Amino acid sequence: MTLPPDVRELLERLAAGSVSVDDAAAELARVPSGELGFACIDHDRKRRQGFPEVIYCPGKTPEQVRDIVGSIRESGHSVLATRAAPEVYEAVRAAHPDAFYHADARCITVQVGDVPERTGRIAVVSAGTSDIPVAEEAALTAEWGGAAVERIYDVGVAGLHRLLRHLPALRSARAVVVVAGMEGALPSVVGGLIDRPIIAVPTSVGYGMHFGGLAPLLAMLNSCAPGITVVNVDNGFGAGLAAASINRVAELASAR
Amino acid sequence: MTLPPDVRELLERLAAGSVSVDDAAAELARVPSGELGFACIDHDRKRRQGFPEVIYCPGKTPEQVRDIVGSIRESGHSVLATRAAPEVYEAVRAAHPDAFYHADARCITVQVGDVPERTGRIAVVSAGTSDIPVAEEAALTAEWGGAAVERIYDVGVAGLHRLLRHLPALRSARAVVVVAGMEGALPSVVGGLIDRPIIAVPTSVGYGMHFGGLAPLLAMLNSCAPGITVVNVDNGFGAGLAAASINRVAELASAR
Amino acid sequence: MTLPPDVRELLERLAAGSVSVDDAAAELARVPSGELGFACIDHDRKRRQGFPEVIYCPGKTPEQVRDIVGSIRESGHSVLATRAAPEVYEAVRAAHPDAFYHADARCITVQVGDVPERTGRIAVVSAGTSDIPVAEEAALTAEWGGAAVERIYDVGVAGLHRLLRHLPALRSARAVVVVAGMEGALPSVVGGLIDRPIIAVPTSVGYGMHFGGLAPLLAMLNSCAPGITVVNVDNGFGAGLAAASINRVAELASAR
Amino acid sequence: MTLPPDVRELLERLAAGSVSVDDAAAELARVPSGELGFACIDHDRKRRQGFPEVIYCPGKTPEQVRDIVGSIRESGHSVLATRAAPEVYEAVRAAHPDAFYHADARCITVQVGDVPERTGRIAVVSAGTSDIPVAEEAALTAEWGGAAVERIYDVGVAGLHRLLRHLPALRSARAVVVVAGMEGALPSVVGGLIDRPIIAVPTSVGYGMHFGGLAPLLAMLNSCAPGITVVNVDNGFGAGLAAASINRVAELASAR
Amino acid sequence: MTLPPDVRELLERLAAGSVSVDDAAAELARVPSGELGFACIDHDRKRRQGFPEVIYCPGKTPEQVRDIVGSIRESGHSVLATRAAPEVYEAVRAAHPDAFYHADARCITVQVGDVPERTGRIAVVSAGTSDIPVAEEAALTAEWGGAAVERIYDVGVAGLHRLLRHLPALRSARAVVVVAGMEGALPSVVGGLIDRPIIAVPTSVGYGMHFGGLAPLLAMLNSCAPGITVVNVDNGFGAGLAAASINRVAELASAR
Amino acid sequence: MTLPPDVRELLERLAAGSVSVDDAAAELARVPSGELGFACIDHDRKRRQGFPEVIYCPGKTPEQVRDIVGSIRESGHSVLATRAAPEVYEAVRAAHPDAFYHADARCITVQVGDVPERTGRIAVVSAGTSDIPVAEEAALTAEWGGAAVERIYDVGVAGLHRLLRHLPALRSARAVVVVAGMEGALPSVVGGLIDRPIIAVPTSVGYGMHFGGLAPLLAMLNSCAPGITVVNVDNGFGAGLAAASINRVAELASAR
Amino acid sequence: MTLPPDVRELLERLAAGSVSVDDAAAELARVPSGELGFACIDHDRKRRQGFPEVIYCPGKTPEQVRDIVGSIRESGHSVLATRAAPEVYEAVRAAHPDAFYHADARCITVQVGDVPERTGRIAVVSAGTSDIPVAEEAALTAEWGGAAVERIYDVGVAGLHRLLRHLPALRSARAVVVVAGMEGALPSVVGGLIDRPIIAVPTSVGYGMHFGGLAPLLAMLNSCAPGITVVNVDNGFGAGLAAASINRVAELASAR
Amino acid sequence: MTLPPDVRELLERLAAGSVSVDDAAAELARVPSGELGFACIDHDRKRRQGFPEVIYCPGKTPEQVRDIVGSIRESGHSVLATRAAPEVYEAVRAAHPDAFYHADARCITVQVGDVPERTGRIAVVSAGTSDIPVAEEAALTAEWGGAAVERIYDVGVAGLHRLLRHLPALRSARAVVVVAGMEGALPSVVGGLIDRPIIAVPTSVGYGMHFGGLAPLLAMLNSCAPGITVVNVDNGFGAGLAAASINRVAELASAR
Repeated sequence: MTLPPDVRELLERLAAGSVSVDDAAAELARVPSGELGFACIDHDRKRRQGFPEVIYCPGKTPEQVRDIVGSIRESGHSVLATRAAPEVYEAVRAAHPDAFYHADARCITVQVGDVPERTGRIAVVSAGTSDIPVAEEAALTAEWGGAAVERIYDVGVAGLHRLLRHLPALRSARAVVVVAGMEGALPSVVGGLIDRPIIAVPTSVGYGMHFGGLAPLLAMLNSCAPGITVVNVDNGFGAGLAAASINRVAELASAR
Repeated sequence: MTLPPDVRELLERLAAGSVSVDDAAAELARVPSGELGFACIDHDRKRRQGFPEVIYCPGKTPEQVRDIVGSIRESGHSVLATRAAPEVYEAVRAAHPDAFYHADARCITVQVGDVPERTGRIAVVSAGTSDIPVAEEAALTAEWGGAAVERIYDVGVAGLHRLLRHLPALRSARAVVVVAGMEGALPSVVGGLIDRPIIAVPTSVGYGMHFGGLAPLLAMLNSCAPGITVVNVDNGFGAGLAAASINRVAELASAR
Repeated sequence: MTLPPDVRELLERLAAGSVSVDDAAAELARVPSGELGFACIDHDRKRRQGFPEVIYCPGKTPEQVRDIVGSIRESGHSVLATRAAPEVYEAVRAAHPDAFYHADARCITVQVGDVPERTGRIAVVSAGTSDIPVAEEAALTAEWGGAAVERIYDVGVAGLHRLLRHLPALRSARAVVVVAGMEGALPSVVGGLIDRPIIAVPTSVGYGMHFGGLAPLLAMLNSCAPGITVVNVDNGFGAGLAAASINRVAELASAR
Repeated sequence: MTLPPDVRELLERLAAGSVSVDDAAAELARVPSGELGFACIDHDRKRRQGFPEVIYCPGKTPEQVRDIVGSIRESGHSVLATRAAPEVYEAVRAAHPDAFYHADARCITVQVGDVPERTGRIAVVSAGTSDIPVAEEAALTAEWGGAAVERIYDVGVAGLHRLLRHLPALRSARAVVVVAGMEGALPSVVGGLIDRPIIAVPTSVGYGMHFGGLAPLLAMLNSCAPGITVVNVDNGFGAGLAAASINRVAELASAR
Repeated sequence: MTLPPDVRELLERLAAGSVSVDDAAAELARVPSGELGFACIDHDRKRRQGFPEVIYCPGKTPEQVRDIVGSIRESGHSVLATRAAPEVYEAVRAAHPDAFYHADARCITVQVGDVPERTGRIAVVSAGTSDIPVAEEAALTAEWGGAAVERIYDVGVAGLHRLLRHLPALRSARAVVVVAGMEGALPSVVGGLIDRPIIAVPTSVGYGMHFGGLAPLLAMLNSCAPGITVVNVDNGFGAGLAAASINRVAELASAR
Repeated sequence: MTLPPDVRELLERLAAGSVSVDDAAAELARVPSGELGFACIDHDRKRRQGFPEVIYCPGKTPEQVRDIVGSIRESGHSVLATRAAPEVYEAVRAAHPDAFYHADARCITVQVGDVPERTGRIAVVSAGTSDIPVAEEAALTAEWGGAAVERIYDVGVAGLHRLLRHLPALRSARAVVVVAGMEGALPSVVGGLIDRPIIAVPTSVGYGMHFGGLAPLLAMLNSCAPGITVVNVDNGFGAGLAAASINRVAELASAR
Repeated sequence: MTLPPDVRELLERLAAGSVSVDDAAAELARVPSGELGFACIDHDRKRRQGFPEVIYCPGKTPEQVRDIVGSIRESGHSVLATRAAPEVYEAVRAAHPDAFYHADARCITVQVGDVPERTGRIAVVSAGTSDIPVAEEAALTAEWGGAAVERIYDVGVAGLHRLLRHLPALRSARAVVVVAGMEGALPSVVGGLIDRPIIAVPTSVGYGMHFGGLAPLLAMLNSCAPGITVVNVDNGFGAGLAAASINRVAELASAR
Repeated sequence: MTLPPDVRELLERLAAGSVSVDDAAAELARVPSGELGFACIDHDRKRRQGFPEVIYCPGKTPEQVRDIVGSIRESGHSVLATRAAPEVYEAVRAAHPDAFYHADARCITVQVGDVPERTGRIAVVSAGTSDIPVAEEAALTAEWGGAAVERIYDVGVAGLHRLLRHLPALRSARAVVVVAGMEGALPSVVGGLIDRPIIAVPTSVGYGMHFGGLAPLLAMLNSCAPGITVVNVDNGFGAGLAAASINRVAELASAR
């Protein structure tokens, strides 16, 4: 933990005798509550800014997204914007012609500087074709977080042989994101086949008494395959971030 | 459809001229509402009495169950009593020493006369050891309904190779009952492997946000394997009866 | 179980001495994981392709449906497309003038080759006029699966005499699909009158605290008539497939 | 509406000149808020005390129930105590040897004075034997409220001919209480056969996803037979009171 | 109960000796199941046709409603159409210029013949202005069912003095329909003030965690004022019919 | 409590001998039920009319809102209209050019007379930018109720140091409204830092299994920081009113 | 904000030259994260210790409660223990003979030193006798927090005149806690009569579809009387604390 | 992938000419379905058996647990038994005197051979004292999975300074398990302070409308701190396993 500059300066003035102990104590106490205790937080945040910024688009106008993109890239960082409708992309591209639209994932990316090397590998698995947007959001997010991603799509439990072909890839990944709607059985089946960290993502894909994703969410929380963790319905971003975070921990361990 | 005796008698009196058309019409109209229309129902019920009677034990005292068992066997029929606690069995056995207790299934059976031949074959599959009581209730009920039953237990999705060993048996059954708690993924996996009628039974086996079986029930209703039908949580009896009913339809077809 | 052709060929080369045991073992082990174990699945799938393919339209563009229809018929199979909006049909008909639109059932069918004979008979019963689209989806699906279908519509419990007229037809069917919204009481009443396999379909038809079909779904799961099985809300396709599957099992039995 | 005595006295003192208008106005305004406006309520309550008092036992000790019984009969009224466990009855009988225990209904009654004549007739219908306690609570309450009651029990929809025998009795009743657990289909069937006021009572009798009576409650609220009204789960008392209230309105109309 | 014509004819042929007893019995048994038992139902239905027909408009096209209106009036009956959007009325009026649109209640009425006298009086009470459409649907339905209706609107519990002004009218009604959204407290307050049959109607008027009317529905089912009965959310039609039915029972009693 | 004028007049006529005690008593008893008992209510309502009137706009046409605004200001009071869409404002402004639109809060205000001094201070805290509309509705309402308001926005728990900067302001407020969507953790954190009355407002801001605000509502009801009270989802108006009410109680206490 | 002693000492050593600026900075940075930023919190906590400590008993053994009571009183503070079963009280009294058991409230209090004067007045209102334990918990907690409490019990909406008698007391209270189970209508009625801060407490008292208090909770959240705030089901402690907190704010205001 | 021994042997016999191609093909096809495809699974399972076996005790008798413990240690592995009641431990200790009971975690461990070195470090954080059993289950499981564990208990959000003291330990862990009941706010706060993988565990600790852990579960799924993953309520075992799995991935990475 490092001290904020003005606190350091205060200590120097005290040592120099240009301020009394009482005045120094009073000044230190006047520092806005929390500033000291959280100096390390800010410090850490700064270090983390090697990660690109992320914009969640719903509830923002295309113009607002466009402007936030501008302010992020001005600060020298790459941009990831999730849940971006095509009209949002239109507004962004008008101002940033190098913006790229991942239509499947409904994401916009703007690369600033060279693409950093992706190290480690995670896998993103999805059950049905309707689950692909969520899976792609997870995959893009994990790539943004520095991980190489292997996409294994359309391998639902109604055709197990498709999944089994990919066992070696699944068993060597650092983390596996499993995306499924309907009854959400896929993470349990994957969990019975591999021993890597699994992050399950229920999707709102379903009909009848599906309750917008509650059915697969409950299935995943109650999985008979132990050790599976779950994120909110359709939350590909959260799952991708968690997988990237696991990959980064392994990266740090391997770098020692 | 046969007529009730007093209606037959009325017709005879009318033919004999001992009653006028008006009086016969009036008398016929006075027959308690429904008696005529449902004569065929009663008739059919009688035919169905080749099936043994079934007693649902909860809410009945051991003595009440004992007495119902007595009255059924007096009428010449075999008995199946479901959800029977050990103390219920004690009371029944005291009066009926030949009663048999299926502890796993929590069922009592009393065979009256020779065991009828079981024709056709259905399969009962269960995921975990905790699901066995429900599976056994289904198996016993189906046997009682005249079907031969193949039991395939402890083949949950967390160890798929155990299930795959039984594919031939599953693919040649007339109907398959699949019993699963936790996340209820097993029927979907079975449904992707075979094309026989599948009846899924969710069980209340689970922890945390399982809601007493709601999690697997929703999973089964939302199965990505089409054509699966579902019964209520822990309702092994209902599933066994449905499987026996399918088997009987096939039996009737083969007998023509 | 038959072996895939290339495995057979490998054995022949080994027997011919043109490959060593080590190399044969290595090659066999290189076969993608699951391929062998699931060879029988693929084999079976092929046999099942006597059944027509089914397209679930929601979430697909009219053009996508049109192209899938084309690819199925090119492979020599008939087509069933469910939940097809009129504009989907327009797109399909433009390319396939012989496509037929079942407006009530919201289904498109394209017959390739002669219509196969329908054997066995199932019944589809519905409570109210608003339930007819779901009932028709079930009926069309069952016909597609090879069953003859008797439609008995608008026989809700608020006018029992309408239902009772059809008892003989219900009692001789191989399976009965019962479709009902509102309070979902019809399957219980039918279940008290016949002893054939009953598949209950709750519909989302209702008002107020109906929860999109939860009310009739719960009623059907809790039916006092034992042996009824249930599919998801509005899932006429699933119910029709289950009924066709039961009919096919009986057909196979009668063919022995 | 009659005035409370002290207000009448105040008016007399004002007329007698023994109090000024200002003082009378001030005094009138000092009358506790609500006393005047609700005088008629109290008056009406007194008239209603021709009805016996009712004690809801749960949450009260046997001794408390015993004492309340004592205080009611001292005021000259008969007593109805609902949901009374046997031990409550023991405590009551020790002090009131003429207390009567209706074990089925779990109710205690103590008759004070002659039994009043019961006029008009309502019917109480129940589906299964397990629903009888709730049905009996309704029947006893309705009798207590002055109605003659016809009990028609064990006529669930799984055996319609039993119900149809009673159509004449149902069609001539002033109101019909229909009690059903499981899927709660009976009120809809009754509602399709008669045009009398129907009060439906869901019971907590059921298994699996029954949610303690939610299944039949939803069924009854969504009944396709229009004009059915519903009370809370197991609330036989409320249904009986509503039926007695309807009967009393008819009684008052016939008395004019 | 009268017999269907062909049964009468059969009896006559039997009396005339032109058919044997055996043949008559066989023929009688061949009568479609249910026809006889339910003759009385049909008979009763005919008597009930003094009541006007009711059309529930949602799910029907304006043209369908228009045609049903036509067919009802041709049979000599008046018409009530509920939940009718303005465009439905336009279609109906084009063919039936004397159709009347009750915009508040979203109902269309067509009077055929003279308006029948309304006898007895019920009250319809509503809490907020947003509840008026449901209240008006109840009021119109009750009038259609032959009752005189007193409307007491906008008397929610947040201003009790407004309600108290109407106590005499409430206390002399044969039945009271109480319509309330939000927290649904009004029926409890009314129930504490009067002893007439009360039918509570929850409405979907509310915000936040109101769950489309579940909040007031639960409140009404749990009312501390005993004897209140409830209908489904926004079901003014059902409540009006129930009130009219109570009024009719009293009318019949007074006519004896 | 003051008496209504006609009651006062009645007393004067009685004192003057121009009416007998019996007639006066009869007349007093004829006063509509509730009028007397609730006179104080009306009186109090009048005193409260120092507070401005509030219009809830949803379900009202722009023209209706415009007219209500007119009638309120004619009676000499200022106006607050909540949940006002821009088109409502257009209609209001056309007739009331001095109306002001708070776009963030979706509120319209019309000031009549001088702005009253705001005394006391409450704080309104919000977690995310999406929560600001609800927070602003609370703030405007509290100001309207006479309180000075300190707005502390965008201080969610994911960046605690932002919140801690405002501790002194929070600790000296008379009440604190805390607005949060997503997981609703902010009130618990604030509750652990201050000991002032806290009113928590869950918002419908969230995704996936958020159930329209149920997630933060449950969190706030279950807060580990004791003494927090909660209002309905998105109910900024209710929270602002509660805070203003607390401030007013303190104001009255300080004025003694 | 005052500094922790060791930080003050560090500054003194720095001023005295016995430590270098670098070392002082390093030492300051080594202070456990948060200690500085939260010094003011601790300081404030200390001031708050004029309030007595509160023990929530469930989940603690009688011996654990007894020991916590001992450690609190040793520190010189009075004790409030909530949800204390009689056997917990037995254990506490054995060690603390002056402990007092409030059986209705299920609370234990131990007074240390003189009873502090209670200033300001709040009211606690409850609907039914079964709600009294929760109401008493609220009342005791508020008294412990320094408020005088007026208890107004058994004034449910089914007998409004009882409530109206207490209007003056309600209108002059600083805050009103309203406790109600069943349908939870009482806070709405109270809210329509007074303009003081109202804290509503739903209780789990109810039957049938009450869902353990969900029914009154939803009613209170949806109250048509604006400005009501709510706490969790049966949370008398939370409501009492909130009321005491409001009273304290008013007390502080009056003390200026 | 390696072949099972008998398949290798078959190939050798074929190469040796001691079996024909047809017979070899037939034999290969007779291998139980799935055996081949899943050989790698079994192989992998065997490798994983370096991990100790885990017994979930609920639903097993003490004697069953005792016997399973015996059979595991006979196979040379250590044992972890979760959710073990004291009487289960008694039965186990009688047969295995070296069994150790972790009363807080309700777990039994039996160490076979030397304790393996724990590498890497994860942290387990809990909010309240009542959450400790779940936290301990997670910690023990993670240790069993080979991770070193730092326990940070009783640092709920109502006293943030306690949590902040542990920031360095949290920021250097490979994964952090955060256990919280009540409103479940702690994971969000931790997630705002660190960037390590966070696994949130909701507990059933709570009162009123807590729904057995649904409240914190929803909070955690909706956390505003991105990248948090969640397990089922009270599932400390699952969270510990997930954390150990992350740690193992990092361990493997560091070992390369």
